[in-house]
Amino acid sequence: MKLYEKLADEITEAVRRGVFAAGERIASVRQASQQHGVSIKTVLHAYALLESRGIVETRPQSGYFVRDAAARALATAPASPRTARKAPPPVPATVDVSRLVLSTLRSIRAHDAVPFGSPYPDPSLFPWRRINQYANAIARRHASWNLIDDLPPGNPELIRQIARRYAENGLPVDPGEIVITLGATEAINLSLQAVAKPGDTVAVESPTYYAMLHAIERLGMRAIEVTTHPQHGVDIDALAKVIARQKIAACMVMPNFQNPLGFRMPDERKRQLVELLAAHEIPAIENDVYQELYFGDTRPSSLKTFDTNGLVLHCASFSKSLSASYRIGWALPGRYRAQVEKLKFLNTLTTPSVPQVAVADYLRQDGYDRHLRHLRKVYRQQASIMSALVLRFFPVGTRVSTPQGGYVLWVELPPQVDAMRLYQAALARGITIGPGLMFSTRNDYRHFIRLNYSYPWTAHAEAALKTLGELVSAMAAA
Amino acid sequence: MKLYEKLADEITEAVRRGVFAAGERIASVRQASQQHGVSIKTVLHAYALLESRGIVETRPQSGYFVRDAAARALATAPASPRTARKAPPPVPATVDVSRLVLSTLRSIRAHDAVPFGSPYPDPSLFPWRRINQYANAIARRHASWNLIDDLPPGNPELIRQIARRYAENGLPVDPGEIVITLGATEAINLSLQAVAKPGDTVAVESPTYYAMLHAIERLGMRAIEVTTHPQHGVDIDALAKVIARQKIAACMVMPNFQNPLGFRMPDERKRQLVELLAAHEIPAIENDVYQELYFGDTRPSSLKTFDTNGLVLHCASFSKSLSASYRIGWALPGRYRAQVEKLKFLNTLTTPSVPQVAVADYLRQDGYDRHLRHLRKVYRQQASIMSALVLRFFPVGTRVSTPQGGYVLWVELPPQVDAMRLYQAALARGITIGPGLMFSTRNDYRHFIRLNYSYPWTAHAEAALKTLGELVSAMAAA
Repeated sequence: MKLYEKLADEITEAVRRGVFAAGERIASVRQASQQHGVSIKTVLHAYALLESRGIVETRPQSGYFVRDAAARALATAPASPRTARKAPPPVPATVDVSRLVLSTLRSIRAHDAVPFGSPYPDPSLFPWRRINQYANAIARRHASWNLIDDLPPGNPELIRQIARRYAENGLPVDPGEIVITLGATEAINLSLQAVAKPGDTVAVESPTYYAMLHAIERLGMRAIEVTTHPQHGVDIDALAKVIARQKIAACMVMPNFQNPLGFRMPDERKRQLVELLAAHEIPAIENDVYQELYFGDTRPSSLKTFDTNGLVLHCASFSKSLSASYRIGWALPGRYRAQVEKLKFLNTLTTPSVPQVAVADYLRQDGYDRHLRHLRKVYRQQASIMSALVLRFFPVGTRVSTPQGGYVLWVELPPQVDAMRLYQAALARGITIGPGLMFSTRNDYRHFIRLNYSYPWTAHAEAALKTLGELVSAMAAA
Repeated sequence: MKLYEKLADEITEAVRRGVFAAGERIASVRQASQQHGVSIKTVLHAYALLESRGIVETRPQSGYFVRDAAARALATAPASPRTARKAPPPVPATVDVSRLVLSTLRSIRAHDAVPFGSPYPDPSLFPWRRINQYANAIARRHASWNLIDDLPPGNPELIRQIARRYAENGLPVDPGEIVITLGATEAINLSLQAVAKPGDTVAVESPTYYAMLHAIERLGMRAIEVTTHPQHGVDIDALAKVIARQKIAACMVMPNFQNPLGFRMPDERKRQLVELLAAHEIPAIENDVYQELYFGDTRPSSLKTFDTNGLVLHCASFSKSLSASYRIGWALPGRYRAQVEKLKFLNTLTTPSVPQVAVADYLRQDGYDRHLRHLRKVYRQQASIMSALVLRFFPVGTRVSTPQGGYVLWVELPPQVDAMRLYQAALARGITIGPGLMFSTRNDYRHFIRLNYSYPWTAHAEAALKTLGELVSAMAAA
């Protein structure tokens, strides 16, 4: 093959893949000559060939542009065997919780579906305009950013604001303990890696939030699932028996508004849990991302509140209450602080600066509590509406959780209903749900689903829930 | 202790820790009553006590404020034994490369020192004004962000722009292969985890960029260091011998402008390296973050250019050439794409949206190449200046690298000079350097240092380099 043919084929392939979009200008002849290290003549020859194939067109004084028709036609054509990079054979992957979760999330995006299956809160309730204003003001006032300034543990002013919030809420925290992370996801990963090693066994709730299972899977550890009461949280006697029977490297729990059960673990049980674990020197990783989203009159305590040994690694974020896509989380790792800080440095170096400072600026103002009061009220109302309608639309034998905070409902379907089949059938109708299988490694909860009620309650959402109920009824009757 | 005393003590402690700064308003009586779940009377009593202690003062119509004098006095006082959370005993940590690196970085920040020791480029040369303008425009035009839109592999438009840039530079890349990460740091970590497991042995260059060692350390693997030529890169015969002798799970290299050596591996050697590894089915992790910072007339190739088996996991970022604190990196993981994408999801869920879109918008415009041409010219000039001055100021027996790109110089000192002692002595004079120990796990390179020449060359920098030369001379003569 001649050089100019090779170049023309490469550009054709790039158009097919959408690298160059319809109507977009490709490199000038001079640029292409430099970029590809070929002569001007070769480029001219290649571009003439592309024109004759109908892939690009020239516009006077402007250059070469991708023709709309060509982009459309190529998008559906198979790759040219000559220029496509050989598609690498994928290494087989076992079916696992994380793959199911990721494909559920993708289905929401791809189908623009009713987001009952989403684990994330409706972003339209967040104070974007104000946070973005702070971000913009920061971008304007700083000529440049030095990465070194926000190295772990993170931006000092953000750390101070987080400590201040804890102090105001009755949990005195040493700012020196806080490590800023990329969302609670990273905080949980780093905390687990700080206290346990591959092959270790970690106790989790059952059902458990799958991010816990992800962290365990990612680090090559084993999960042991402990019975969890839908109102009181993890069964402390059952946990004590597990601990008596085998070595447990860590315990991962979500004591406030657990995802998916929605319970608020009573203070006394939180204290008992901390004491049981402390008696065996077992670190507790506390995922407290929903703490701000309580429905009652009083803010819940955290496991950290009862920690006197530095054994609780408390993880939280602003992703559920202020802004998910800013990705600001943190850990209070107790006696494991040095390790968590170091792991943050090794894992992702730093968290982006502007989001850190924007959130700090937002917190310094007075609006956060007002925003949270509104959010809690909306979620509480929508929890009632969804619970009532599930009980109305779904067949006899359906049971729902009574969330004390957060924005998800846990629904037990009649036992003969397979939630994975329901998931597929619902998706075909543009509705997503969270299948119960995601919340366990034991193939449990096959007839459970999780529903997100953070989105505004519309006629469209109500119709979708009705459709879901009909699907469940049909499956229950089959 | 009475409730009001406890509350007053907590607030005092928060002021001592800087959680409430001098002049800052503390919660109103009503707010504090709600937050702490105590009566208005208790709060009034506590605040009166704080006033009598001189810690807060009232301002009419405004509330209670932290007194400047109190904040200053308390900042140096020891913690109250009653209210301080018990300081958790730190778990002992072994001295390792990452700790040395982190403390070097901290010293730059803490001392506002001459940043010869910094691994990061001078941020003032980056086009902040323009990138920030894009970020601001995005923040204004989007009412809200849905996390789901930018789930792994990442923002589709950013992916397309990155693919486009590769295509224009003669490396046709399938956009479907790209996974966006939080800087190259995360890309390297995920790539290594995708191909190797704890306990495996990974071949690296010697000296090697310490981020490679960090990734190996973090994942509980072992590094084997392979002789590396200061101009041609890793010794392929030596690597072949290592492979013949033992099982190697992966090979991590930096073929372009390696940090610290600065070489540009010749194309033929890149091809040989890829072929050697492919013959043994060993994945290559290529850290190509400096690729854009070449000094000659031609852009260097990558290992990826020669990869026909999908065994090269190419990692790069915009941190060295556009914006470090935006933290946008990516991986081209070849046949390991599915694993890397999944690990990204497990590790940090997503990369923040606004930085992704801002960089995509910036790339769509024409300014990046112009910016890079300027950056290359500045770095090339500063490399010459620093090399010449090191040879002038440092004693006989000093040798310097001849970087072909990037912004670091590798300096061999007379063998009797201990670079760690030099590091301490220089720091005492407000100058940082990168001690050679950071670039190996074998206690090698004790008389080597790395110097950053990305910062503008000033009289102050020149004086610092002269001071450094005097310290080296004194140590060499001792």
